Amino acid sequence: MNTKPEPPYYAVIFTSQRTEGDRGYGKMAEKMEELASMQPGFLGVESSRDNHLGITVSYWDSLESIENWKNNTAHKMAQQKGQEEWYKNYFVRVCKVERAYSFEK
Amino acid sequence: MNTKPEPPYYAVIFTSQRTEGDRGYGKMAEKMEELASMQPGFLGVESSRDNHLGITVSYWDSLESIENWKNNTAHKMAQQKGQEEWYKNYFVRVCKVERAYSFEK
Repeated sequence: MNTKPEPPYYAVIFTSQRTEGDRGYGKMAEKMEELASMQPGFLGVESSRDNHLGITVSYWDSLESIENWKNNTAHKMAQQKGQEEWYKNYFVRVCKVERAYSFEK
Repeated sequence: MNTKPEPPYYAVIFTSQRTEGDRGYGKMAEKMEELASMQPGFLGVESSRDNHLGITVSYWDSLESIENWKNNTAHKMAQQKGQEEWYKNYFVRVCKVERAYSFEK
């Protein structure tokens, strides 16, 4: 898994606000991350959640790989459950990563 | 502030790991967000930090606006302090938002 290849590549920014309680979310989130990581073109994923907002960014080699993952059967079931149970709202942005740079101590 | 205009627009994904302790970080982060929001072409910002990782995504109308903010004098001083004091590492990705969709209960 390499979240830091040379651009260009693609990023999906998923921001969300959760409903109260776990309701099986943690287990499913873990499962989906595992399943995503097995998809062709998956480069990696980074997540952070605080009390206000969750941000998950997944990285992909192409728009086609993103589309395939979006339409994956198990993922579609999780999306439906997400709308019914886990999320108050979410927003998805599909982006082309054009430049990248880093700092490390 | 409108973080959800019609694509295309630009996103800067900033992922970071902090050093221990606040060291004046919170105050400066607040100040930088205020200053960024006054820049031409700024559309909005979303942040989340947990124990492992912080993700901040800021949204802009163009690459030029991103470049101007990167080179803003007060921001450059904060960047230097960030490297010296606040961050163990960070990674910046400049992206073009090509598609967006949402769910709301």
